[in-house]
Amino acid sequence: MTKIKATNITWHEGHVGREERETLLEQKGALVWTTGLSGSGKSTIAYTLEHALVQRGHLAYVLDGDNIRHGLNKNLGFSAEDRTENIRRIGEVGKLFVDTGVLTVTAFISPYREDRAIARETVGEGNFFEVFCDTPLEVCEERDPKGLYKKARAGEIKGFTGIDDPYEAPEKPELVIDTSKVSPQEAAVQICEMLEKAGKISALGE
Amino acid sequence: MTKIKATNITWHEGHVGREERETLLEQKGALVWTTGLSGSGKSTIAYTLEHALVQRGHLAYVLDGDNIRHGLNKNLGFSAEDRTENIRRIGEVGKLFVDTGVLTVTAFISPYREDRAIARETVGEGNFFEVFCDTPLEVCEERDPKGLYKKARAGEIKGFTGIDDPYEAPEKPELVIDTSKVSPQEAAVQICEMLEKAGKISALGE
Repeated sequence: MTKIKATNITWHEGHVGREERETLLEQKGALVWTTGLSGSGKSTIAYTLEHALVQRGHLAYVLDGDNIRHGLNKNLGFSAEDRTENIRRIGEVGKLFVDTGVLTVTAFISPYREDRAIARETVGEGNFFEVFCDTPLEVCEERDPKGLYKKARAGEIKGFTGIDDPYEAPEKPELVIDTSKVSPQEAAVQICEMLEKAGKISALGE
Repeated sequence: MTKIKATNITWHEGHVGREERETLLEQKGALVWTTGLSGSGKSTIAYTLEHALVQRGHLAYVLDGDNIRHGLNKNLGFSAEDRTENIRRIGEVGKLFVDTGVLTVTAFISPYREDRAIARETVGEGNFFEVFCDTPLEVCEERDPKGLYKKARAGEIKGFTGIDDPYEAPEKPELVIDTSKVSPQEAAVQICEMLEKAGKISALGE
């Protein structure tokens, strides 16, 4: 970095650090990575959590299919190679968001263990919180919010996770939530408690 | 979005809007896109601006070669096609940052007019501030901070912007800065004034 001489303001040398932004925000950057079958409750939990965090005065942001698949990753399909690249890019964007100090929540099926491991490594241990939405397939299929299971069963969609493409369950997720038993609000509360324990946000009333 | 019934907290339906985050942050999301030759002062201006904004209590973040070319775009080279994809992805990430409410600053040569036009369209008019670092080539080459002009002149690097690859100057940039005449601090002050006038940040003392 070019040395900048002070005039009337104290100009730093070097870059603003993550810590300075975190001090400003009164929170620490983190990536809450939800994973699970289609219909397992990832998006609902993500948006409920985002609301809970914003209500508590925190800066939170959700990355999901709506803003990623139609934007950054609109040039990717659903082949194994493209799925891997999809998750790789999301991990890299997550890393930038965490460096900015944002409490970031992703909602992608992310079915492959190795892809999630790469995202974890990219974002860094201590910043990455894997939340496994472990809702039984029959419940997800019953919900079928986008009508995709019906199409997959009818053979209209090929390579659908849980039907004719594997979902590799996390081995050591930071949290497991079965949304057939736990409400989105309860899930959000559990995730907030996890973030409190990890020192990412203050406990309520502190 | 699934309807969520209130328990002890008022849970919103739908997503947290950009406006809610902007209210929280007391600023509005914007993308300051610096463009110009290698050595024209883009990075120095970007980091000086970031410091100035953080000192004023604002959340700011720089996207540059260090965090993009080694991360999100590490699978891209320097062919015309890859340069276009490089800028496309940066525009898409910029859009997400602006939606989060962050004052975002990019520092990339971004030599092609059409690529910058796509970024502007992605981020949206009113959110995109093109800052043309219009420093004369001979000054940039004299500075040669990374020794790249020397290598390009020696033929060791092919397709180097300004030497054997074109730089297409912006036609209607929001701001023009010649860093052979204007200091990084003065440049940062000019950009802050531009952001104040656009209602992205409050004027000092307000």
